[in-house]
Order: sequence, then structure tokens, then C-alpha cells
Amino acid sequence: MSGPSARTDRVDAERVARVCEALTSVLEQGQLRRDADTLAAYGRDESDSGVFPPDVVVFPETTAQVSAVFKACVAHGVPFTPCGARSGKSGGSLPLNGGVAVSLERMNRIHSISVEDLTAVVGPGVVTGDLMKAVEAQGLFYPPDPNSWEFCTLGGNVAENAGGPRALKYGVTRDYVIGLEWVLPDGEVLRVGRRTIKGVAGYDLVGLFVGSEGTLGVATEITLQLIPLPRKVLTALVVFPSVLDAARGVSAVLAAGILPRCLELIDDVALRAVDGRGFQFPAGAGSVVIAEVDGHGEEGLLEELSRLGDICAQQGATQTLVARDEGQREKLWAVRRAISPALRALKPHKISEDIVVPRSKIPEIIQRLKMMGAELGLTVATYGHAGDGNLHANILYEGPHQRGLVDEALRRMLVMTVELGGTITGEHGVGLAKREFLALEQGPALLDLQRRLKSFFDPSGLLNPQKIFPALKRST
Amino acid sequence: MSGPSARTDRVDAERVARVCEALTSVLEQGQLRRDADTLAAYGRDESDSGVFPPDVVVFPETTAQVSAVFKACVAHGVPFTPCGARSGKSGGSLPLNGGVAVSLERMNRIHSISVEDLTAVVGPGVVTGDLMKAVEAQGLFYPPDPNSWEFCTLGGNVAENAGGPRALKYGVTRDYVIGLEWVLPDGEVLRVGRRTIKGVAGYDLVGLFVGSEGTLGVATEITLQLIPLPRKVLTALVVFPSVLDAARGVSAVLAAGILPRCLELIDDVALRAVDGRGFQFPAGAGSVVIAEVDGHGEEGLLEELSRLGDICAQQGATQTLVARDEGQREKLWAVRRAISPALRALKPHKISEDIVVPRSKIPEIIQRLKMMGAELGLTVATYGHAGDGNLHANILYEGPHQRGLVDEALRRMLVMTVELGGTITGEHGVGLAKREFLALEQGPALLDLQRRLKSFFDPSGLLNPQKIFPALKRST
Repeated sequence: MSGPSARTDRVDAERVARVCEALTSVLEQGQLRRDADTLAAYGRDESDSGVFPPDVVVFPETTAQVSAVFKACVAHGVPFTPCGARSGKSGGSLPLNGGVAVSLERMNRIHSISVEDLTAVVGPGVVTGDLMKAVEAQGLFYPPDPNSWEFCTLGGNVAENAGGPRALKYGVTRDYVIGLEWVLPDGEVLRVGRRTIKGVAGYDLVGLFVGSEGTLGVATEITLQLIPLPRKVLTALVVFPSVLDAARGVSAVLAAGILPRCLELIDDVALRAVDGRGFQFPAGAGSVVIAEVDGHGEEGLLEELSRLGDICAQQGATQTLVARDEGQREKLWAVRRAISPALRALKPHKISEDIVVPRSKIPEIIQRLKMMGAELGLTVATYGHAGDGNLHANILYEGPHQRGLVDEALRRMLVMTVELGGTITGEHGVGLAKREFLALEQGPALLDLQRRLKSFFDPSGLLNPQKIFPALKRST
Repeated sequence: MSGPSARTDRVDAERVARVCEALTSVLEQGQLRRDADTLAAYGRDESDSGVFPPDVVVFPETTAQVSAVFKACVAHGVPFTPCGARSGKSGGSLPLNGGVAVSLERMNRIHSISVEDLTAVVGPGVVTGDLMKAVEAQGLFYPPDPNSWEFCTLGGNVAENAGGPRALKYGVTRDYVIGLEWVLPDGEVLRVGRRTIKGVAGYDLVGLFVGSEGTLGVATEITLQLIPLPRKVLTALVVFPSVLDAARGVSAVLAAGILPRCLELIDDVALRAVDGRGFQFPAGAGSVVIAEVDGHGEEGLLEELSRLGDICAQQGATQTLVARDEGQREKLWAVRRAISPALRALKPHKISEDIVVPRSKIPEIIQRLKMMGAELGLTVATYGHAGDGNLHANILYEGPHQRGLVDEALRRMLVMTVELGGTITGEHGVGLAKREFLALEQGPALLDLQRRLKSFFDPSGLLNPQKIFPALKRST
């Protein structure tokens, strides 16, 4: 997987030396590291996009330090790339050209949680799960739940506009960010957005910055809106003979006017990968859907799940099992979270995709993906947030010798997604992994406008270079 | 109120003549009007910002025509300002410098409603209430409900990022817009966003364009996400002896973890203005709160309202009356909608404000507004979406001789709003009405960035000039 690294132009050692000198004057002891282990660790993320070690990693602890680091990098012409927990799935935090990796992980304080205002103010390095637990202890709810919530950080969630299973009912990160302290690429510090739930003063720069994948600046403080914690949650496992039945069940549930907070689909391959690992699926299960509803009254929720079960039965479901208690609920979700690592154990390599199609097209895309896998001789496992059309389609493969085939499968998958009215990424971002595919979905005028917008915010082009947008072909 | 008009520089007659010639070649018969009545009508909106008639009004019916109109205006150096139903409250659609008013009202087709995908595609001229009814007939729900929903248009809602009472639970317009066909100021046509519920490919230009108040371009097609229609809605009237008790009641309900879909407050002045007009408030009512909850089970909702009533009783509420049927519900909401015109009948003039404070500050801001009114000898009526801290504070006055006093009251109101951590506009926009106050809330660097962003998208500066941002003082 070292292919891509060779293609990029790394910054020269002299500039690096000069920027390190400048950085030591704005940082404290221990906030700058250049040892081989650190550089190797900060050259990877959870994507399959290659290894790109930085020349130096810095750990600022204040907004002023982040600003000073950015200014030093610009002054010395050294590329700089922000990162958080490096749990990203699209290579967004990989320092393609080397230079300075700017880790926000030490800015990890929860500054305040207000029960009265239903807001929280946090540093970008706060782990998402830590915030979830802290607000739940006060009867509040922060819904976005990326699969990596136990270790990913809120700054990364903001950069990628992270989603998760609950996005179906509750939306994604951007629906909860109301204000940001933001450091622009030139080091200027701005406050954008607000502390109130509502507000329309000026342009919605919060909307623009959330999901900008670390290419327009970085959040150094995040103001989030919260909602009251639903008093009751019920989770059910709906068992189908096949993945196509399950996909049709998901579509039918939504078309019937039921909006669970999660509707997660697990196909036959993914199901076999996790079956028996702390959870035994019922005999004859060819595919399952995890459905979760929440609200304030248990009776209403049971009725909701019962209607959902009836609709699924009409689409071929054989059983709907409601989790009896919190322990059973947790087991179900543990199975869901175990899919990604379990698939990795099936074959030495996998590519995890993150496509979205209009909900009515879920059965069709699943069918076409299976057919494509059969045709190319590759194993395709599909699971994920089927309720909002966001599927994590995984291609499993043996090793580098199959990479050409995998690339072909990936291309076909994204082409068919766009053909069906879908998008190439629902929550992982474009980053490095998909920049060559963005043009499948977005026309030249839109790509050009976005490239110019990047230059507007980052005239030096040194912040997180070469991400999102496909490289322009040079005229000869 | 003709003061402001005199300050602006109108475009000269020769340019207007030339652009009209160009426009007649891209429009059909009847799509261009210059008669005095039309020009007068398109020089006003629902704000108190003055009268600024355009030199010509055009009514394009296709995206290609909108694009051609924009190109003609730029080619001839004539300012152009988009408009919809002219129900705006901040002067955003007023053609300050004359020129061409571009009305999108004839692009009023609902192109499609998909029950399976939970989406709708509409033209910008579709009346918000028409879409609401059309989707409800299919069991779907479009929640944003600006007070003017019976006549405002979705294009205007997109431009202003309109809210409404249900924003408390369901969010505002931008939470439902997933894709746009957008005409940039230079006439270029782009498709931004997507047709799927989720998606993070590229920068969130939809987020930037929604709420840009007609200064960055205009939507010619809008793709909206819908949700299933809640099967049951219950509405209650909570009666308080005073507005301060009511404000404390609202805060207490939210802090207790109850999230109704609406929590509308009506103070003593507003209450007296509408009392007896088709609805008789209980004796001793000094202020009321309309609380509305929705969901799938009546039992759960009754329990919710009962908890809400208990909490309000602890804050001094004397009664909680649940509407028996749809007729009673409709009566309550008719009262709420009647406040704005009824206040206008109390005194010849009123300024309607649209401030937001963090929810915990609702009692304090109401108290301070009343004190300010008493000090200045002006009647202040406060009502609105207290649940999300968005209050419509109205200053009633006798005539132009009091305008100086009113301006002082307005300034003090916005200053205290910002002091309490609030924003000067929750849903009406900055437009013309508040551009001189934006600097209370946003610093020079942020204002400068936004001005440069406006120039990035509109280098000619001809689209809806002089809106949102305070005029720069010229150095002498």
C-alpha cells in the first residue's frame, strides 16, 4: 500500500528544520515530537489510503498555540495537516506531503454543560463518548454516534460531519453544532455561529466549516446544542431469510410513516462474520435488521415496534425479537460494532465503502452490489444505516495481487451509486480515498467553484493539501 | 418612512432602458412589467424598512430565464434583487438602488413528492402552506412553519432560513433542504447538495446558500427532505398570572427534559390585543403559553402534557387547558397568528423584533424589555417562540414623531440581547433592517471575511446590493 506515497512531493528538509525552530519558540517542552514511532503513528488512519508520515507532530493546548503553529507553517512554506484521534475512514488527516501534523487531542476539556440552555461547550479533543456520557448523566442527549464514538473526537466529528446509526431520526454532527471558535489557515481566530439554538445573523459559516475535512481551518472550541434524553429506548432484532427481503423491509417501514431512531441492516456475509461471537443469531437468519425506537412512554414504543414487526413480516421477516433489558440491548449493539473488525478477520484486506442512495433504491443497490461481487469474484459484505440509505459496502480481498480488481469494483460501485441518484460518501468524507471519484457526482463548474473557495480561505494552499478535489491535469 | 430611500444611489435611466431591451429578448410577453402599481407593490415588504420601488419587475418561469436575466443585469451594470411573496420582515427583497426586481413567484410547481424516499422537489415560488398540505395528504410532514405559511414561498424560506413555532423540536428550513439548483450572481447554474438524506461530498454549499438572504444567488429548484407525519398532536393553553411566571415556566419545562414541538409565549399586552377576538382567555390570565406535543400514542402525549402542566403549576400557572378537538386547536393557533395584526391595530405603528437569547435568559430579557419600555414611555409587547429563546418583541408607537425614541429602544434591545449571549435575529434575517446592528454581535474580522465572501460570489456587487453588512465608512 505504499504506492500513493511515492506520488506526492514531500517538503524539503531545510524548510522543516526552519519551521521546527519556529515551533519550539511557540510551544512548551513535550508539545513537539519527531521520534520515529510518533511519526509512523501519525502517518496512518483507519482508511486504506496508505501511509504518509509527517516530519513533525505538534500538540498545541491553546487556541493561541494553534494560531501560532499555523502562522509559523505559512511563514516557512511548510504544509500542515490537522488531526484528532486518526479514526477517519477517508485519509483526511494524512499529511500527504509530510510537514507538520497538528494534533488537537490535548484540547480535550468539556468546558461547560448547561441543563437550562441545553448546550455544551467543548474542546476539539474531547472524545465523543465522553461527552455523551457526561450529558446523559445530566438527563441530556447528544445524538450523533459514529461507530468509533468510544475513541473518536468531536473536532474530528466536526471536520468530517460525522453521522452514525441515530442519524436516521436525529441527524448528523452539523445539526448539533451551533457555534465554533475557528482558526483560519493563516492563523486568524474567528468566532462563528452563536450560543443560542436559533439564529440567522450573517452567512452560515458554521454550515460551511462543518464537514470541510480540515481544509478550511480547524475548530478550537465547539458549542453544541443538546436535547432532552429520551426516557425510554427499545431495541429489536428483525430476522429475514435474505438481505433483499431485509432491504425491502427497511423501505416498507419508512414508507409506512415509522421513523425509528436506528434501522441498521446486516447482510449474510457480515452476519456470518459475527455470528457466535457473543451473540447467536436465530437459525435460518439470512440477514437481520436492528431497529431501535425511543420516546417517553414504553407502551407507545412497544406499539411502534409491533407495527414495524408486522410490516417486516409482510416483506418476509420470520421473527421480531425485542431486547428484554439493557444487557440484551448492549449485546445487539456490540454485535453491530464488531462487524468491521470481524470482516477484517475473514480476509486479510478490505475496503469499506460509505455510499448513500435514495431510500427507495436500497434493495436495488444491494442486489447490484452482490451481482458485481459475483462477476468479479470478490466477496461483498453490505451493512450499515440502511434507514437513511447509507450503506457500508465492504469489498474483502486476499492481497495486493487483487488490488486492480478491487479498484475496478470500487469504481463500478460508485458509478452505480451515482446512477441511482446517490452520493459517494454519506459520513466518511472524500479526503484522499475518494477524491478521484468526486467528479462522478459533481460537475466541473461545481468542482471549480469549490477549488476557488479553498484558495479563498487558504491562499497559501499549505493547509491539508491535495484533499477532496481531484488533482487538476496539467496542460503540457 | 421615506428617509432611507433618499440615502441610496439609484441606477440611471439610460442603463435601465438598455437592460429592459436586453430583458425583452430573453422573456416572453407579460414577464416584464413597468407599470406604476407593480413597481410600487414590489418596493415594499412586511418590514418597516421603507419603500424602494424597482425600475422594472421580471417574472421568469424557467431556470434558463433566471440565468439570462442575471447575465443581462451584469452586462448592463444594473442592480438586481430577487423576491418571492414579499412577506419578509427585514427588507431583504427591497431593491435599494432600484434596478430589476426578479420575482420567482411564477416558478411555483411542486415537481415531485416521494413517499418512498421521503423527499419533495419544488420550485421556489411554491407557497409553503401548499407544500405542507400536499405532503400531509400523503402522510408526510414538512415541519418549518413561518407565521406567514399561508402566503410565503419556499424560495423566500430558503433565502431567509425561515423558522416558526415548530422549530423548537423540528429545526428550521436549512434542516430540511438537501439539494438546490442555484443560479449564481453571474448567471451560472449549479446543482449543489444531493437527493439523499445523508451526504458529505465536498463543501456544504447548501448550508452556505440557505439563509444568504438573496445576496449569493437564488434557488430555482429546491429538494427537501420530509419526515413521517406524526399521527397525534395535542395542544394546551397554560395560563399564568404574569409574563415573568410564564417565562420561568418555559425554562422549567425544558430543563425538566420535555421537548414539545411548540412552546409559544404571549405576554399581557399581546394577550389583551387578541382577547375576545374569536377566543376568550380565562379570567385572571396575565400571560399564556401555547404548548403543543406530537407523537404516535395519545396516552403518552397526555402524560407529557400533564407533566408539563405540573411543572408550570410549580412556576405559578393557574390552569392547563387541553384542546378537546381539532376545532379548538385551530382556534388557539388562529389567536397566535392574529397577534401581529392585532398589535398593529392597538397603535398606528410597530417595530417587530426577532431576538434570541440562551433559553435560561428568557425571564431576564423579558423583564429588562418591560423596564426599558416603562423608562422610555413606549409599549413593548413580547410574544413568540420562547421555547427556543426566539422572542418577537414589538415596540408600539404613535407616529414618526416617536421614531427617535423607537430607534433608541431598538438599539438598547439589541445591545442587551447580545450582552445576554444572544443574537439579533432568529429567523427574520438581517437584510436592510438590522445591517447597522450586526457589528454588535460580530467582530470586524468576521464581518470583513463575509464581505469578501460576498465579493467572491458576486464580484460585480450588483446582486441585492447593500444588504446584511453595515456600510463601510469611507476614509476621507
